[in-house]
Amino acid sequence: MSKYLDERYSSLAAYVPGEQPQDKKYIKLNTNESPYSPSKATLDAVNVGETELLRLYPDPDGKILTKKLADYYGVESKNVFLANGSDDILNFAFMAYCANGRKSYFADITYGFYSVFANLHNSDYTVIPLEEDFSIDAEKFCGVDGCVFIANPNAPTGLALSLSDVEKIVKSNPHNVVVIDEAYVDFGAESAVKLVDKYENLLVVQTFSKSRSMAGARLGFAIGNEEIIGDLHKLRYSTNPYNINRLTLAAGAATIDSQDYYDSNCKIIMETRAFVKEELEKLGFFVLPSKANFIFASSEDIDGGELYLKIKDKGVLIRHFTTERIKNFNRITIGTPEEMQIFIDKVKEILEEN
Amino acid sequence: MSKYLDERYSSLAAYVPGEQPQDKKYIKLNTNESPYSPSKATLDAVNVGETELLRLYPDPDGKILTKKLADYYGVESKNVFLANGSDDILNFAFMAYCANGRKSYFADITYGFYSVFANLHNSDYTVIPLEEDFSIDAEKFCGVDGCVFIANPNAPTGLALSLSDVEKIVKSNPHNVVVIDEAYVDFGAESAVKLVDKYENLLVVQTFSKSRSMAGARLGFAIGNEEIIGDLHKLRYSTNPYNINRLTLAAGAATIDSQDYYDSNCKIIMETRAFVKEELEKLGFFVLPSKANFIFASSEDIDGGELYLKIKDKGVLIRHFTTERIKNFNRITIGTPEEMQIFIDKVKEILEEN
Repeated sequence: MSKYLDERYSSLAAYVPGEQPQDKKYIKLNTNESPYSPSKATLDAVNVGETELLRLYPDPDGKILTKKLADYYGVESKNVFLANGSDDILNFAFMAYCANGRKSYFADITYGFYSVFANLHNSDYTVIPLEEDFSIDAEKFCGVDGCVFIANPNAPTGLALSLSDVEKIVKSNPHNVVVIDEAYVDFGAESAVKLVDKYENLLVVQTFSKSRSMAGARLGFAIGNEEIIGDLHKLRYSTNPYNINRLTLAAGAATIDSQDYYDSNCKIIMETRAFVKEELEKLGFFVLPSKANFIFASSEDIDGGELYLKIKDKGVLIRHFTTERIKNFNRITIGTPEEMQIFIDKVKEILEEN
Repeated sequence: MSKYLDERYSSLAAYVPGEQPQDKKYIKLNTNESPYSPSKATLDAVNVGETELLRLYPDPDGKILTKKLADYYGVESKNVFLANGSDDILNFAFMAYCANGRKSYFADITYGFYSVFANLHNSDYTVIPLEEDFSIDAEKFCGVDGCVFIANPNAPTGLALSLSDVEKIVKSNPHNVVVIDEAYVDFGAESAVKLVDKYENLLVVQTFSKSRSMAGARLGFAIGNEEIIGDLHKLRYSTNPYNINRLTLAAGAATIDSQDYYDSNCKIIMETRAFVKEELEKLGFFVLPSKANFIFASSEDIDGGELYLKIKDKGVLIRHFTTERIKNFNRITIGTPEEMQIFIDKVKEILEEN
């Protein structure tokens, strides 16, 4: 930190992404990426013709992709906002709706970036504890006096709220924006997109990073009321109008055109998730019922941190959080069936060695 | 704008990028893009192998590209910061060094985004007028009590400060960061990168958008003291750690490996610039001596706005600004020699028709 840096950032604890060690080849089950490559259509979209156009700025409005997403989700282009990953959108939402002393509310155990954004923008934030079983009690987010952020399904638990619970929260907070962060929604949860027409305070955030195999391309989007989307555009045009590169815009459009392929991958991942849950339960693990492309599991036979380290040593990366309440758990991304069989085998070995 | 948006943004005037009309095919001389495609090495780097990896997050530290840039510029990796375009870096610099009432200084006629960032982050900013001849008087930026932003070469004038003038400004402001925005430096100006070792308050910002033909890939970088670079990393990790996509990182690395190609393009663009200046002067234009990939020109025979509209009608886009002091000028990007011959021919036609 330099002596010039604004003091308000001096104590800021930045977000810590999942580790990307380069020392050897791991089975990567730690950052919730898809185990499946993008579709052939997506790959083909990033062709020589498109790279030759790299000399030209991208369309700052991403009109083609915006229209495709609008059609796919049954809304209009004016209801869709594209961003350089969904973190970009969450950052704008904190700036727009709960910065400089304005209030925000989110769960104690949820996406770790919410508290980072809240601190960065000096939001007066309240953390609402999850229930004993890690579920969200929708009532506790109803009628609050600030912007609400809910990851649905939640991370790292994988638990999802029903659409009626989400609607209850949105409906009860007409004076504040409710952000439903649906990064993992395509793995079995219900999207709130269908409520966008009904509530002017709802902002649904999604990403191409998980179900659409494009974490490396950086593409997120939001769907909401025209005016909320207008707020985000205003901030984007005041920070970085050309925020999405040409190749990602082209790949994103081709991805929507080959949605069947991605839907089929989601189905396989959900089946694999059921298999992994069952196998871990056979080994005595407690596994939360996940609607995401990861599971959250703990065991009374082995400490969470110990399992994380021992399985890393055996070439499998999973994600461990040191937060007191969840320190006995690990978050395990669902890979291919073959990868997950290896994971299960390694867990067995570790339990036997213990 | 929604009723939920923070009031501080209500009067915010966002940056207006150059127009990208889709009604017909124009010769685009309005957004300072390179007329030359990226090198074969750059194109080849965005191959099927890399697109198949799109399912994985990019390296958030962009270590390979960072090291290549460090080697190329004779600094260390800890002195290099990568971003999703250089606007990303300028935004962070305003956040870090002159937000919420802290002071900043920049010229009246310069990159239009500085005042947008200053307003966005509530900087207490002072605009220092350029001299009568549009040059920057370095003395006026010496010993000020806030962060300094200087585009060198300046936009839209194309005029460059000497390295000794830049050093004078940096040296005289030890208590404040001086940002030298070198988006156009490769077209004949002197870079301040060589001063980075000497001054802890210097931040040099560059981009791959102009001389490296990658406006569509979104890649900017900064070079500075380790602690200043650390500040930027802290903000990046608190907003969007995976800010650069995989394909751009790969293309960027290959670009540094094929730097000869880009150097040769810069040389051609500088030669074409000299040709255009001479031709416009023959037609009675006043043309500032540019060190950038554009020229800034006015004529007593035709109003700047009129020329812009008439030449657009003839299929050539140039950039006109309505700011009082420069409203008789146009900023004309240097394209290929063939494009510039057409531009000159159209200007002649318009003058004859007048």
